[in-house]
Order: sequence, then structure tokens, then C-alpha cells
Amino acid sequence: MRDLWLIGIGTGNPEHVTLEGMRLLREAAVVLIPRKAAKDDLAELRLAILRAAGAEARVIAFDMPERDPALPYHDRVAAWHDEIARRWVAALEGAPEGPVALLVWGDPGLYDSTLRIAERLTPAPTVRVVPGVTALQALTSAHAIPFNTVNGAVTVTTGRRLRDHGWPEGAETVVVMLDGECSFQVLEPSGLSIWWGGFLGMAEQVLESGPLGEAGPRIVRARAEARARHGWIMDTYLLRRKMG
Amino acid sequence: MRDLWLIGIGTGNPEHVTLEGMRLLREAAVVLIPRKAAKDDLAELRLAILRAAGAEARVIAFDMPERDPALPYHDRVAAWHDEIARRWVAALEGAPEGPVALLVWGDPGLYDSTLRIAERLTPAPTVRVVPGVTALQALTSAHAIPFNTVNGAVTVTTGRRLRDHGWPEGAETVVVMLDGECSFQVLEPSGLSIWWGGFLGMAEQVLESGPLGEAGPRIVRARAEARARHGWIMDTYLLRRKMG
Repeated sequence: MRDLWLIGIGTGNPEHVTLEGMRLLREAAVVLIPRKAAKDDLAELRLAILRAAGAEARVIAFDMPERDPALPYHDRVAAWHDEIARRWVAALEGAPEGPVALLVWGDPGLYDSTLRIAERLTPAPTVRVVPGVTALQALTSAHAIPFNTVNGAVTVTTGRRLRDHGWPEGAETVVVMLDGECSFQVLEPSGLSIWWGGFLGMAEQVLESGPLGEAGPRIVRARAEARARHGWIMDTYLLRRKMG
Repeated sequence: MRDLWLIGIGTGNPEHVTLEGMRLLREAAVVLIPRKAAKDDLAELRLAILRAAGAEARVIAFDMPERDPALPYHDRVAAWHDEIARRWVAALEGAPEGPVALLVWGDPGLYDSTLRIAERLTPAPTVRVVPGVTALQALTSAHAIPFNTVNGAVTVTTGRRLRDHGWPEGAETVVVMLDGECSFQVLEPSGLSIWWGGFLGMAEQVLESGPLGEAGPRIVRARAEARARHGWIMDTYLLRRKMG
């Protein structure tokens, strides 16, 4: 593998793909696609994007490994990335020459492992990153709200950090990614508002918002229902504290 | 104006526009374009995107007002937004019926005024926000770096806040927007690395990175040179502190 293209494709709406993303999908020789049993509709979405792009690349699938729950968090993630890199290499044996593309949900830079997995390859490929619409933009655009207040700062963090550390010191706006547990429930809700979205950009999109005390339980229910209906869910949310 | 579409178009690379953005540019009846004397190449870029989309909308320009330097910061911004809203309404007198589109650099939610200006319109239009690639993604993709560390938080802030408040308490990664003064110079550089970009996504793109102590002065020079060459500059940067 000489050239590795990490192509951000947005959050599940095939129209989120940029013109650059569509062009590189057409120019790639190989597209590597992960297989995850639980999320077959995501694999199908990737194939629909390739068809829409008119891609003629060889599509090669690899099975995503499981994470080892016996390992501590950072070791578990590192071992998982090592194993994915090995599976890429194995999957590409005998593949056609030319650029290899991966379709990455959202943007390859934002809470995504693909760049870290690519770093493990030897010899190192030439990596090109194509920016894509992230869940942050999909969330704020769906609610038609600004990400930041005028001259305000925003903390982007994870559900795990919110559970472990609570509300970030002095923060006004907090966006939470990778949260499988509605971790906003650990917060004292007074003065906080929430804007939440599941399946952002997709036909199944679900939105809820309001003061956290009132909207929080509503979101927990909406998330559980949507997850039961689809078998999985991707969601994210923005919290804002009324200042001064 | 019944329908107002705020369309994120990325950071100046016409290929950053999404398929959704291209489609809505074709479906709009009117496109409102700001005129700014100093940034004529930006106005030209917007027109090039409209041509590429095959847009048939009536293009209506309005002159951007100046901010009043005599007012305190928040009042100055509010008065400026009021005046822009008045100019939109005046510019649209006698315009064709149908959806009005604005092309917004980056994403309409991220350090952009368009949503706040739209809120001032009476009667309130139906606002649709189309997400776009932001300077954050353009920066991290150009450098092929991740936005966040594994399970790490990121603070997105402004040059003004960095000057007024210094390094955000406890932060590991800080992304700085709207900084006209290389405000990283107020920081004690030890332990910090910087990834900087000007004219991100555009043909004129300039990138610099390295340990802040060494790269900082290099960036100040590169920024001054690029600005002198073009008459203006848009730039942003990411700072990361070595933890533990």
C-alpha cells in the first residue's frame, strides 16, 4: 500500500459527502470496508455512497475485531488498533496496485481511530485525509443552533470523561461524543440546556432538546426506543450553561 | 423571505462543498452575497461555486457594514448584526419568490454570525442549516493529525479568549479560531506543540508545525508574508500539550 486515502463521508446522509470525497472514491483502486455484524445498514450505506460516486474500485471487506474487555482502557484500544492494522494488511494481499481508500464516518480527525491505525503500517504509506462533515456539524445544523456563543469557547469531550470528571471547569458549552450511556445524567441539571440527536443526517434522525432537567429523561427514553428499533444507535449532544 | 438556507461551503476549496450544498444551490431562487472590498477573491470563489453547481438563482449582493470601534465588544457585534439584517431585507426588496440561500464559509454553526443575524428577521423565516467542512477539519486533515487524543477532550476557543485568559485550565488540546494576532505568543511554550494553517483548503494554503518555542516565530513570519502577498489572511491552529 503506497497511498492511503482516509475519506470523511459525513454522518450517514449520502449527501454529506463532499465533491472531493466523491472524486477520490472514483479515483481509488481499492476500497477497504469493515464488516460489523450489528451495523449492516452502515455497510450498506457505504456501498450506496460508492455506487453514487460511480466508483470502480475493488471493494475488499475485512472483519472488525472485538476489543478485549480484560485489558485496561488505553491498552485495550492500542491492542485493538494493532489488530485492525494486521487485518488491513491481510485483506490487501493480492489487491490491485493503486490508492487504497477507507470511508470514514464523520471526519477522519474527530474521535476516529483510522489515523492511529494507519500509523502502525510499515512501510508507512502516504496518508491523505479528506475532511468530512462531523457529528458536531450534523447536530448543530439539525437543531439550527450555533456551536459557540459570541467569542465563547466550546469543550468537545467524551461520555467517559464526563462520567469521570463531571462538568469541565469553567466551561460554557460542552459537546459530548462516544457516549453510550447518556452520561449527562451525572450532571446537576440546573442552568443547563441540552440539544441531542441520534442517527444524525440519516432518514431515522431523532432530535430532542430543552432544559436538561426536563429533557434529560425524555432523551433517555427516546434513545432507548430508537436503539431497540434499529439494534444500534449513534448519538451526540451539546450542553450549554447559562452564564453570568 | 419565507425560507432561508444557510449553506456551509467549506474553507475555500470548491471541492469542500457537499452534495447537499450543491443541490440546494441549484434549488434556491435567490443567493445573497456579501461584498467586502478587501476580499474580492472570496466573492469570486462564491461565484465559482455557484457556476459549478449550475445555480440559476438570482444573485443579489449587499455591502457589508463596518463594525463601530467606539462600542464595547459585545455591543459592537450586536449592532453590526442588526445592521447586516437590515441590509439583507433592503437587498431582497423586489427579489423573486422562493428560497433565499447564503453561502457560509466553513459551517454556519461554527464561529459564524449568520444564524444570529437570521434571528433578527421579522417575521422569522424557516431556517435550514446545511453543514459544511469547517476550518477545524481543514486544519487537521491538511496536517493529517487527529483533532483529539484517545478519549481526550479538545477546547475550541478564540484568539481574544487566549489573550484574555491564557491556556484553558487543564486542557490538553486547544484549537484557536478568529485570531488576527498570533495570540499563541502569550503562552509559555514549553511542552506545547502547534499545527498552523493559513488559506486552508485553498490553492494558497500555507502549513507550519512544530514545538511552539521553535515554530511560533516561524509562523509569525509565514503569516505576515502570506498576508502581505494576498492583502488578507484566514488562519487557524491547534495546540497540544504533552500530558503526564
